[in-house]
Amino acid sequence: MASLLRLPSLLSPSKGPLLRRRLPAARLAASAASRGQASAAAETRGGDREGQVTPRSADFNAWYTDVIAAAELADYGPVRGTMVIRPYGYAIWEAIQDYLNVKFKETGHSNMYFPQFIPYSFIEKEASHVEGFSPELALVTIGGGKELEEKLVVRPTSETIVNHMFTKWIHSYRDLPLMINQWANVTRWEMRTKPFIRTLEFLWQEGHTAHATLEEAEKEAMQMIDVYTKFAYEHAAIPVIPGRKSKVETFAGANRTYTIEAMMGDKKALQAGTSHNLGQNFSRAFGTQFMDENGQIEHVWQTSWAISTRFVGGIIMTHGDDAGLMLPPRIAPIQVIIVPIWKKGDEKSAVLEAVDSVQKILKEAGIRVKVDDSELRTPGWKFNHYEMKGVPVRIEIGPRDVTNKSVVVSRRDVPGKQGKEFGVSMEPSILVNHIKGRLDDIQASLLQKAITFRDSNIVDVNSYGELKDAISEGKWARGPWSASDADELKVKEETSATIRCYPFEQPEGTKKCFMTGNPAEEVAIFAKSY
Amino acid sequence: MASLLRLPSLLSPSKGPLLRRRLPAARLAASAASRGQASAAAETRGGDREGQVTPRSADFNAWYTDVIAAAELADYGPVRGTMVIRPYGYAIWEAIQDYLNVKFKETGHSNMYFPQFIPYSFIEKEASHVEGFSPELALVTIGGGKELEEKLVVRPTSETIVNHMFTKWIHSYRDLPLMINQWANVTRWEMRTKPFIRTLEFLWQEGHTAHATLEEAEKEAMQMIDVYTKFAYEHAAIPVIPGRKSKVETFAGANRTYTIEAMMGDKKALQAGTSHNLGQNFSRAFGTQFMDENGQIEHVWQTSWAISTRFVGGIIMTHGDDAGLMLPPRIAPIQVIIVPIWKKGDEKSAVLEAVDSVQKILKEAGIRVKVDDSELRTPGWKFNHYEMKGVPVRIEIGPRDVTNKSVVVSRRDVPGKQGKEFGVSMEPSILVNHIKGRLDDIQASLLQKAITFRDSNIVDVNSYGELKDAISEGKWARGPWSASDADELKVKEETSATIRCYPFEQPEGTKKCFMTGNPAEEVAIFAKSY
Repeated sequence: MASLLRLPSLLSPSKGPLLRRRLPAARLAASAASRGQASAAAETRGGDREGQVTPRSADFNAWYTDVIAAAELADYGPVRGTMVIRPYGYAIWEAIQDYLNVKFKETGHSNMYFPQFIPYSFIEKEASHVEGFSPELALVTIGGGKELEEKLVVRPTSETIVNHMFTKWIHSYRDLPLMINQWANVTRWEMRTKPFIRTLEFLWQEGHTAHATLEEAEKEAMQMIDVYTKFAYEHAAIPVIPGRKSKVETFAGANRTYTIEAMMGDKKALQAGTSHNLGQNFSRAFGTQFMDENGQIEHVWQTSWAISTRFVGGIIMTHGDDAGLMLPPRIAPIQVIIVPIWKKGDEKSAVLEAVDSVQKILKEAGIRVKVDDSELRTPGWKFNHYEMKGVPVRIEIGPRDVTNKSVVVSRRDVPGKQGKEFGVSMEPSILVNHIKGRLDDIQASLLQKAITFRDSNIVDVNSYGELKDAISEGKWARGPWSASDADELKVKEETSATIRCYPFEQPEGTKKCFMTGNPAEEVAIFAKSY
Repeated sequence: MASLLRLPSLLSPSKGPLLRRRLPAARLAASAASRGQASAAAETRGGDREGQVTPRSADFNAWYTDVIAAAELADYGPVRGTMVIRPYGYAIWEAIQDYLNVKFKETGHSNMYFPQFIPYSFIEKEASHVEGFSPELALVTIGGGKELEEKLVVRPTSETIVNHMFTKWIHSYRDLPLMINQWANVTRWEMRTKPFIRTLEFLWQEGHTAHATLEEAEKEAMQMIDVYTKFAYEHAAIPVIPGRKSKVETFAGANRTYTIEAMMGDKKALQAGTSHNLGQNFSRAFGTQFMDENGQIEHVWQTSWAISTRFVGGIIMTHGDDAGLMLPPRIAPIQVIIVPIWKKGDEKSAVLEAVDSVQKILKEAGIRVKVDDSELRTPGWKFNHYEMKGVPVRIEIGPRDVTNKSVVVSRRDVPGKQGKEFGVSMEPSILVNHIKGRLDDIQASLLQKAITFRDSNIVDVNSYGELKDAISEGKWARGPWSASDADELKVKEETSATIRCYPFEQPEGTKKCFMTGNPAEEVAIFAKSY
């Protein structure tokens, strides 16, 4: 599918989208021109320069959009702020789905599907919910050629319609807990958009549960933020910080919002998943009641929780480098790319035979492996291409390897010769063990690297001045906080940083609020965020 | 989750939907009342009458909506014509997805995702497409509180936006074939709706491919209708008739539409899946071109193909009976339900121990098994409940079975004593073989029954009079046809029957059109349809 001819259109924004890269126009043009040259050259000499991207250190935002284009993760849709998720990007989303879908079922949730059109009046029923979402709504006003009597909201989230249905289904304590999930598209009319991170329409899962008691709802909300945390650490190799949102940052309609906050490569924070204890806010607004074991009528206690395609953006921005994407093996659509190498015609069949056999061995061991034996590209081009795509392990097999019954193994996360091993035996059990070992090493190493990066960029602060310094250096600030919502908004205005969360993991001992000097029960983490 | 208290609200339509059952209001009320009684009685004596539905023979449409409610497959959404797919109905859809998703990947397609908002101008680009779809569009006119400059169409299908993107991605013959699929929701402003069969919003997969030649596109369109046919026969046990649509019935924008047509229990036809050879219609409208191997610029040749949640309705209407749903084992979310039976307290632990062991044995063998050991319901209630849900096999285990180390096995598709086997050994290998054998028997038997039903209700006709007779008896008419589009529309006006397809399987020999007496190359099948 990769085509040099395709590159120019991919690297320039589509007609009229607001999702523009923040590159000076001149640089963009120069870059496109140089790529055009490289492409033209490549046509004749099978050049190796396709997919070069802006260096990450030079311009993180440009790097991000370049990688998305060059690795063919996504493209701009025709409507401002919309995104087309291309097969390789979608495969990462499918890996996220595959893991979470199993976990949701293991924890007692069933998938189902609610309509995306919500009567406008529903949104108005829960006071803070309408306040939070009404500026972002897309409204259907015409259906089947006629003006509708009531405008329909294209769901920005489904709490209202879920509660409308829960009210029909829940009557007795025997109907509880009711625990469901849906995989769906949602629409929020965002003004500043960025592929994967914030788009007009995105894909997500939204869990919704109803319980007989506050305690059960709280336990569920915590359980689901734990599921997300575990997924982020163990599969995406993203060392998120789980915690509680401040009142100001709590979801519109929730009593409490739990969050996982991730530090991106530019040190900005990304809210990567949330879980809300909704209390009885929606059940009161929609009259969702049940008869308890004593015959009393009560409102149900609820939660909702979500992870979206934004997480794909988080993976890109956590692990990528100047050569492109770097995918943690557990969520990589391709874990191993095999590149055959031959020069003389008579070498070809022996090399391809060995390649085929190695592919079969790895596939049977459950490793996601792909062979690129295209003769339209040089091995060098392929090396760059699959580095750009973040494939964790590359295997090269040439005539000498065939003779030695061995292969060359390279790690995506260790550049150059240091990441390269020669003479790895083709003997099935040795090879499989070796590759599985390398995939585990890479998984662990990506996580460790991200932990080190995170921890070296969080500063403990004991005064507002220290917070300002930390934030102006682009770091996260952690300090005791018990000041007012007004103070929190002042920090935001003056530094652009917000409270990302009160982390679950708190230092021991008594604390004094760095803003007011009053006693503080908890430290909060402040950071600039996406 | 099942609750008697929930029934009344489920069985009456929600406020104001047009998805009404065609039942006289009086009957509905009487039926609700008698159910209310049964429910009330059940509360005290654990009654067995929950979930009774209108007999299929008495009123097929009422039976259909009753089964959907009683088996908890779906419910009415708050917006007219929308549907909530409940967990049990969604699990059937997931079974369809699981099978097709693998087949699509095996045949070289990748999943991806296109935005659902399409600029209105796109829809107007392909002449017959806009004619076909414009009466059914839902339009977003307000976003973020502001009137939009261009109205946005909520996708009714994605050919237009797909082609817009294909035009960006395809440049050379090396980029072809481009073969993708998306799982998505689509919106069509239908006036007469029916759960699963025709709803304002529904879920589907839509495949889209681009090829270098007409022949390749034709081969692809045929391949995908074959995938659907195989799925229908082998998994859903629905003996669809694959064929080609008449010009009048061809998809808006296609050169050819292939279809699978299924006969429902009331003998009406259901179009259960389609595959279109789009020719160059969309590539010309959107300028989707490529340079071929000789350096010539050509328009690509395309296909699209889809199966939707409508298929779930097809399964219900093919296999159900008066006791409710009847699911083919290969797509049944629960293949085996185990009901423990005990009377005296001291029997309980031994019975539950055996139940647990049998469940483990079957689960390890890959059988989808569930235990219902609730003490709130009697065994009789459970028998009815899981028959309503169409679970293929029931296992009962009582104290005597424990003593004999055996179980009682009942088939959903063979009513009463004939479907019941006593003394089936609990010995793991014997039990697993036995149950797997029964599931296979049921799968084959449902298909055979549907084939017999289908074939006994298709009449070969040689005159318009014979066709009228067949259609008025509610049957399908098959006869040689080479008449005009006008004649085809006349048949529709006078009999309500349309050409469902020219079946791929054609009788040999020369034929004369039953309408005009002119030579005819093919027979066509006429029927009333959903």
